[in-house]
Amino acid sequence: MVKVVILGTGNLATNLFKACREATNIKVIQVYNHHHKSLKPFEVFTETTTNLKDLKTADFYILALKDDMIPGISKQIEAKTGIVLHTSGAAGMNTLEKNNNFGVFYPLQTFSKERAVNFTEIPICIEANTEESLKQVKSLALKLSNDVREIDSTQRKALHLAAVFVNNFSNHLYTLGDEICRDQQVDFSILQALIKETAVKVEKLSPKEAQTGPALREDNETIITHLDLLSAHKKKIYTLLSDSIKQTHGKEF
Amino acid sequence: MVKVVILGTGNLATNLFKACREATNIKVIQVYNHHHKSLKPFEVFTETTTNLKDLKTADFYILALKDDMIPGISKQIEAKTGIVLHTSGAAGMNTLEKNNNFGVFYPLQTFSKERAVNFTEIPICIEANTEESLKQVKSLALKLSNDVREIDSTQRKALHLAAVFVNNFSNHLYTLGDEICRDQQVDFSILQALIKETAVKVEKLSPKEAQTGPALREDNETIITHLDLLSAHKKKIYTLLSDSIKQTHGKEF
Repeated sequence: MVKVVILGTGNLATNLFKACREATNIKVIQVYNHHHKSLKPFEVFTETTTNLKDLKTADFYILALKDDMIPGISKQIEAKTGIVLHTSGAAGMNTLEKNNNFGVFYPLQTFSKERAVNFTEIPICIEANTEESLKQVKSLALKLSNDVREIDSTQRKALHLAAVFVNNFSNHLYTLGDEICRDQQVDFSILQALIKETAVKVEKLSPKEAQTGPALREDNETIITHLDLLSAHKKKIYTLLSDSIKQTHGKEF
Repeated sequence: MVKVVILGTGNLATNLFKACREATNIKVIQVYNHHHKSLKPFEVFTETTTNLKDLKTADFYILALKDDMIPGISKQIEAKTGIVLHTSGAAGMNTLEKNNNFGVFYPLQTFSKERAVNFTEIPICIEANTEESLKQVKSLALKLSNDVREIDSTQRKALHLAAVFVNNFSNHLYTLGDEICRDQQVDFSILQALIKETAVKVEKLSPKEAQTGPALREDNETIITHLDLLSAHKKKIYTLLSDSIKQTHGKEF
């Protein structure tokens, strides 16, 4: 039985804790947070503490914390011999280099407390300070997900950035689409089938192959009609992204 | 049995033909295209013609054509009493006003010949010249989809525009994410679980509620780190969309 301590109680910590409970051969023996109140939802399932000095001996200490908290907390648990892992896309593994054994456990997914995700399908990007640590981190990750990949810190930073484009920015485009619908008293739900198909389509085709629309066709008449309907703010976004599509695809013709 | 003639052989026509064949009580009695070659895939299933003068008598003539073809073709079938429908998001219903009975049948989805979609889940936006025509168009649409909505031409134009944002532009962001991954020898497949979750999440939460990321958190340190990793072209897109997220969400705080 692998013993895990989770540090943090946010969206990722909540989903990770749930995944560990559902996995076989993993036991979360303790959850840490400096606020007692945040620990409430975990208390019924496991031990909790607000004091880093009271951390139990475990195989893994998983820091599911904001990036700027990682150096301070990891320093305070330097004496531990269990593997200290952070879960950040942006922080280098070397943030933890003062620890005895360390690595990265970065699940590439968007987490909300209100929405449970199927952890077994989430790609887990792993990295560790030694071959032996890597073996152990991999074994832990494989208990939680079917998609475990060795990704170094440079690659992980690029992935974190790519995630901003495909997740944060796409979601914002949904928000703009929602606003356009509302202006005409149309319910956003009408766009959901299209949004889902757009996402699922790139499981079979590359996004470049999947591209459609007026910018790809260089259908400037439709583009002008669209621009006429938009506010100055949305017009800027429409123009920049249409030009970018033309630039990406135009070179081939 | 409702008799349908489909005019056009492109992505939508191909998917619509398939959906009609699978539906009960619809028979596509003929497919028209001015190129004989494009009719080949349909010939084994139904009659075809390259001559508008040979169009059979049908309940519906569905124009699955490019927008600029609609006026010319609809004019040539003015004598028909069956309902003439176009399938365009951008063209007004009045494009068909010279026909005896007319309306719009706009399936809000992205279509490719290589990828069969489940037509029963696609929202069909309908409109017609009279109450009686509307009743018939609705009855046809309900044979093909469980999601039929009455949408007027102004609303439909807004939807077509919203679809550019949520489909064309989101897909382009996937392309940019793919490029960022490639630059670091990471396979695009690693982003697919995230892309799918991003799309599915807005079935439960509004896109505004679902927003996450550095721009929402006003985490300017991460934003600067990201900008440093990007080419001038992607930097412009990153900045504009981050500013737009800040503007959309910032007002509330």
